[in-house]
Amino acid sequence: MTNKDEVEWVIRLGDGSSTVLEPEPQPKHVVMRLWDCLKGLAIRFVTRMWMFLKKAWDLGVDDPRKLIHGLKLGVALMFVSLFYYMRPLYDGVGGSAIWAVMTVVLVFEYTVGGTLYKCLNRIFATFLAGFLALGIHWIASHSGHRFEPYIMGISIFVLASATTFSKFIPVVKARFEYGCTIFILTYSLVSLSGYRVDHLLNVAHERVSTIIIGTCLCIITSMFIYPIWAGSELHHLIPRNMDKIAKSLDCCVAYYFGLDDDESMKSLQSYKCALNSKASEETMANFARWEPPHGNFNFRHPWTNYLKIGMSSRRCAYCIETLSSCLDSKNDQVPEPIKTHLESGCMNLCTSSSNLIRELAIVVSTMTRSRKINMAVEDMKNAVLEIQNDLKSLPDLLIQPHEQKDKNKAVSSDIIVMPLIEVIPLVSFASLLIEIASRIEEDMVKTVQELAESAKFKQAEDEVKPKHNQTIDKIVSDEENMTALQRV
Amino acid sequence: MTNKDEVEWVIRLGDGSSTVLEPEPQPKHVVMRLWDCLKGLAIRFVTRMWMFLKKAWDLGVDDPRKLIHGLKLGVALMFVSLFYYMRPLYDGVGGSAIWAVMTVVLVFEYTVGGTLYKCLNRIFATFLAGFLALGIHWIASHSGHRFEPYIMGISIFVLASATTFSKFIPVVKARFEYGCTIFILTYSLVSLSGYRVDHLLNVAHERVSTIIIGTCLCIITSMFIYPIWAGSELHHLIPRNMDKIAKSLDCCVAYYFGLDDDESMKSLQSYKCALNSKASEETMANFARWEPPHGNFNFRHPWTNYLKIGMSSRRCAYCIETLSSCLDSKNDQVPEPIKTHLESGCMNLCTSSSNLIRELAIVVSTMTRSRKINMAVEDMKNAVLEIQNDLKSLPDLLIQPHEQKDKNKAVSSDIIVMPLIEVIPLVSFASLLIEIASRIEEDMVKTVQELAESAKFKQAEDEVKPKHNQTIDKIVSDEENMTALQRV
Repeated sequence: MTNKDEVEWVIRLGDGSSTVLEPEPQPKHVVMRLWDCLKGLAIRFVTRMWMFLKKAWDLGVDDPRKLIHGLKLGVALMFVSLFYYMRPLYDGVGGSAIWAVMTVVLVFEYTVGGTLYKCLNRIFATFLAGFLALGIHWIASHSGHRFEPYIMGISIFVLASATTFSKFIPVVKARFEYGCTIFILTYSLVSLSGYRVDHLLNVAHERVSTIIIGTCLCIITSMFIYPIWAGSELHHLIPRNMDKIAKSLDCCVAYYFGLDDDESMKSLQSYKCALNSKASEETMANFARWEPPHGNFNFRHPWTNYLKIGMSSRRCAYCIETLSSCLDSKNDQVPEPIKTHLESGCMNLCTSSSNLIRELAIVVSTMTRSRKINMAVEDMKNAVLEIQNDLKSLPDLLIQPHEQKDKNKAVSSDIIVMPLIEVIPLVSFASLLIEIASRIEEDMVKTVQELAESAKFKQAEDEVKPKHNQTIDKIVSDEENMTALQRV
Repeated sequence: MTNKDEVEWVIRLGDGSSTVLEPEPQPKHVVMRLWDCLKGLAIRFVTRMWMFLKKAWDLGVDDPRKLIHGLKLGVALMFVSLFYYMRPLYDGVGGSAIWAVMTVVLVFEYTVGGTLYKCLNRIFATFLAGFLALGIHWIASHSGHRFEPYIMGISIFVLASATTFSKFIPVVKARFEYGCTIFILTYSLVSLSGYRVDHLLNVAHERVSTIIIGTCLCIITSMFIYPIWAGSELHHLIPRNMDKIAKSLDCCVAYYFGLDDDESMKSLQSYKCALNSKASEETMANFARWEPPHGNFNFRHPWTNYLKIGMSSRRCAYCIETLSSCLDSKNDQVPEPIKTHLESGCMNLCTSSSNLIRELAIVVSTMTRSRKINMAVEDMKNAVLEIQNDLKSLPDLLIQPHEQKDKNKAVSSDIIVMPLIEVIPLVSFASLLIEIASRIEEDMVKTVQELAESAKFKQAEDEVKPKHNQTIDKIVSDEENMTALQRV
């Protein structure tokens, strides 16, 4: 098998057998292999970079506001660099202009609320820590040179430990976490500088003034250039999630009764957004607290009520999650007549429930009460009654076919009730739908009404009123007729 | 009504009527009111402070590690202050020793993984940004004094915008968010300093060396003084949540059949911990990636598998949430004989399910495979079969009482099936239990097995093996008998 010009090496062993030594791979091969390896690595690297860039591009196209946020930070940083580039300002604020740059980089957040939270935390914590450090430095310097480092050291240790620990307390964590960090930082810096630098007040003054410059710049950029309000985000997220839940519910029931199309399978899973949005809802509500009045939102807009609505949406989503597992299997067991018997009831309940959810979502997003809500609740209650009646008449259906078959015989020995076990998946499907309806009525409607009251939502436009008046007129005239009749 | 020694002022008006001037409230009253007001404020303040301190105290007693974390930061900060207090070191590292203090305050996190994540991000981002800034500064300084500020300004704008935008990409957000911030910060600082400071390399060198001092101190303190590993936390959180789910399931079923005590009502809600722990699980898994091997965890321990188990636990918790709403109402409607008929089946299924969950939790927490799992799965499957049989025999129970009553008559006209609607709550309760069992089998067992394989869990101790051998021996001897028989 070897070429004629290749040398073959054979080793003859002690026992008479011989072994052919395989020729070593040619150096050309090694180079080639190395080349292939490198080429593979390069291709992999380029592919990964390409994937990364594509992902970034998709993200930018999907939500351009994220790109705009990046540009805004760039603008703010450019502006603050001016303080450094322009000599007069530089000489004024001194080398600590660097603090302004740091402030911009560390404080600038995606939402206005986030930026304000960090700005205000930073300013107050810096002031508080600065004054405290100056005070303790004064005490320390008056208690003799020997004790000074001990006093400062112990005060740093105690304050840093206590502040770090207090970050674990939920209220502090939600509102002042960043402030705690800045407090420790400023206290350490000022008190350490106090030990070395003689013009301590200058240091404190410079740091505070540059921080104020930085924070002002951040607040202006984030509030006046294409602002993204945490409150508005929350205000849009909640009804969006509610719509998704309504869509999932529709798809789920349609799929169960075989009325689905390809598109519905995709939106079947959309309730999962509501399941996983707890953390972001809470962050937004926390940030929204710090925001000034904007758009339709007043100063003390009840953001916590949005969290309650979010919670009630999630409670519905839990049920839908359980409902969706009814779709996997067991579906085919259910006898067709029984399925047909309950189909219209289930479809009605599903339609009225999802309509109610959508109406509630409209109430939240338009901030306007709606008279349709009461009607939708009534519709849903009627649908529940209908499905309960269907379930009540189910036993007849379970027996009837056999009665008809054995018309001429005595029924006593021939009754074979259709096995209940086959009906159970459908029955539990229906009772899950009823449970969802009750959660919508008890939780979601209530929490939306609470929000409508505490946020003073606009009254519904009087589209229904004329009709209502007509009804009243009719009732009045009916009553007049009645009294006329009684008089007769 | 006025006392004799009080003066009454009367104004006689133009129209002849008169008005008695009310005596003004005594100054003593105003002071008293102010005093009361102040006292109220003070009491409120003291009460709130007291509540806050009590909350903090409870938190510290509940989890002393949080207190220890605070003390650790204090220790690290004390140590780093030494660099500032001791003159030789201070002269060596210069005024930028302040960076070491900043590093400690900003980088020190609760878990080792969190600290390492921030440290490594900080070091790499500082290096990368420093070199990039030096490079671009070199280019800028060679392209003439006129273009220099423009090149630097544009580069800051572009890099800051791009880096801020890239923080929104999920992979970057999870692993390099802090690094991105530090990258922008360092790049701005170095390139701005480069424009003013002549000894740029010195600045860069000082900053890098102080940051390394700070990070090393942080890593040492967090890894060697009472370390809290994110990996261990995750490793304990997952089975703890599983146990809570098992407990909730037990309580739920016991409560439904009226076997509950006061204590069980409390632990009924404990499944909610599992519902809400998604965010913290993900954070811990992210931090755990950065941790070196410790305890039983190797370098590439499959932390993502823990997230999968967490997800499967949550899927069970969703079902239990739906199950728990069966407890609120409708419970009393179910006729007692039907309830008794299904009680043992439900209790068995619940016990076997919660046993299986507890076994799986033990597997996860001890990192040892268990032969009991297969037996527990079999138990659970048998319990499902049992309950399905109970459900199958339910129709007989629904009709029987009436057949017995009307023994002597023809049944045809007298069959009144017990209304199915009354049974539905119990039936859907049972089918939810079956659904939970199927989720445990399909999701939880599978994800735990995946973890066991990828983390190479220890084999079970051979407690069951002898029995197994006996069985094999028996089979062999049976086979021998068979062949003996065949031979005959």
